[in-house]
Amino acid sequence: MTSRISLPSWRPGATRDRLLEFLDAVRSVPETDRVAYFDNDGTLWCERPRYVQLEFFLEALRRRVGTDPSVGERPEFAAALSGDPDRVGEVGLERIALALAGLFEGVTPEEFAADARAFMATATHSTLGRPMRTLVYQPMLELIAELRRLSFTVGIVTGGGTEFVRAVSEDLYGVPAELVVGTLIAYDFGRDGSGRPGLRRTGRILGAANEGPAKVANIQTQLGRRPIMAAGNSGGDREMLEWATATDRPHLALLVDHDDAEREYSYAGHAETLTEAEPITRTASRLGWSVVSIANDWGTVFPR
Amino acid sequence: MTSRISLPSWRPGATRDRLLEFLDAVRSVPETDRVAYFDNDGTLWCERPRYVQLEFFLEALRRRVGTDPSVGERPEFAAALSGDPDRVGEVGLERIALALAGLFEGVTPEEFAADARAFMATATHSTLGRPMRTLVYQPMLELIAELRRLSFTVGIVTGGGTEFVRAVSEDLYGVPAELVVGTLIAYDFGRDGSGRPGLRRTGRILGAANEGPAKVANIQTQLGRRPIMAAGNSGGDREMLEWATATDRPHLALLVDHDDAEREYSYAGHAETLTEAEPITRTASRLGWSVVSIANDWGTVFPR
Repeated sequence: MTSRISLPSWRPGATRDRLLEFLDAVRSVPETDRVAYFDNDGTLWCERPRYVQLEFFLEALRRRVGTDPSVGERPEFAAALSGDPDRVGEVGLERIALALAGLFEGVTPEEFAADARAFMATATHSTLGRPMRTLVYQPMLELIAELRRLSFTVGIVTGGGTEFVRAVSEDLYGVPAELVVGTLIAYDFGRDGSGRPGLRRTGRILGAANEGPAKVANIQTQLGRRPIMAAGNSGGDREMLEWATATDRPHLALLVDHDDAEREYSYAGHAETLTEAEPITRTASRLGWSVVSIANDWGTVFPR
Repeated sequence: MTSRISLPSWRPGATRDRLLEFLDAVRSVPETDRVAYFDNDGTLWCERPRYVQLEFFLEALRRRVGTDPSVGERPEFAAALSGDPDRVGEVGLERIALALAGLFEGVTPEEFAADARAFMATATHSTLGRPMRTLVYQPMLELIAELRRLSFTVGIVTGGGTEFVRAVSEDLYGVPAELVVGTLIAYDFGRDGSGRPGLRRTGRILGAANEGPAKVANIQTQLGRRPIMAAGNSGGDREMLEWATATDRPHLALLVDHDDAEREYSYAGHAETLTEAEPITRTASRLGWSVVSIANDWGTVFPR
């Protein structure tokens, strides 16, 4: 059965064996329960040296500052533009993210999506020198294709802003907008002068950032189906991965370990436990997840 | 082209012609933009004499009162059990609905879905004498099937509780959970004694009831794609239908007029305008929507 599975970028080894075992076992699961959710940043595409979405907002900020330099004096923007991790840390990434999202206040969803797509069509990665849109992980694209061949519903559960990911998810991963759950900006309903209804972005976040336990609750409220497979790479994915495995059915939790400084980046994620912040790879071993070593398990990282 | 469209329960006439015209015109629309949303109560299934979901909660309440009669003394429950529209109106349907939803506080999503499915498998309609699960509108099922043949994404946007509709939407309409947007109950994330994570229903509503302008905002935040077709039957669907038609693309707004006392029910929906509450059929004419007369346009109402 598994001989027909095509995962050419996954090197032979324990991780690939575990994938094949899972893809074989799920044939016993009803199709409506074949549900897999992937984190995005660091799981489906490169998140270093900065989140793709942060690059997008920074470009919008630089454009804005180009026409009105005083905008750059706002502490959140000054820190963001400095690129100095200490200054960013001082102001706080969350506060900066909210200020950046506010750059699009009053914009329609269609305008925002068009801006996001234009960015992805042209942006280049700052250190890898490749078009930003090609920084998706080829092995994950192959895994998603195999899941779909097995009638899986594949969704993205990201800590990033929902709308940015939705604008590109169909093109990059074949994932439709309704299967993307992220951090949400609220919209205001209104009418133009001729009574035509429409929506405008606000500067408010709906609920909280989509990280940690919120990922589990938001999957339930926004998607309504529980996964039997989840993939992530950081402490913010921990509860989602635990939840995916808390079942008697065949299940799989994949944790991407960024251990390849040569082809991508090398850095450690961490999970908060009751007593310490432990490397997420240790959490993974403790909880029986499959750790994907980019250096060892992936023959190819990015599409050729 | 339209000759291959199969809508046997739709009688020849202006409404059917409009459907055929739309189904032909959408071939020029990219597939990712072929999106249709249907209201549920009164649009996809019968909502009289009481909402199906209200019947479900009333059954749960009667079970509860059976084991603990004092529960029935709570004003919201006493009004609900009395069946007296005046008493219900006095307490307020929204307050009653919230109290009824509270009956499931602490329950897991899986337990709630199992209860909803058990109800739908056995419940009988109080006046029509048919199994509740057969009170879906056959012409709408045919329309949904044709939309799907044209690669439409079909979703449900309901004022009812999301989880109840999701529990039955795949079986009744082939609509997966993630394409159902309704009024949401919040969940609490927690762990059992052995650290296994899970969710429990709370008694809180997330945001507001999914009616009127909220339907438009919630489509954007939860589904992320704008419809070119929407169907409804009440004032709570007005903004969604207006939004679906506020485009230069082929579009369709369908309003179901319950004018068939013989085969279903006869009653008028209303929309709030700035100056009055007008019959929703008048709103429909004013705004150029297609009105579906159950008496005239549907040869069959329920599946045989």
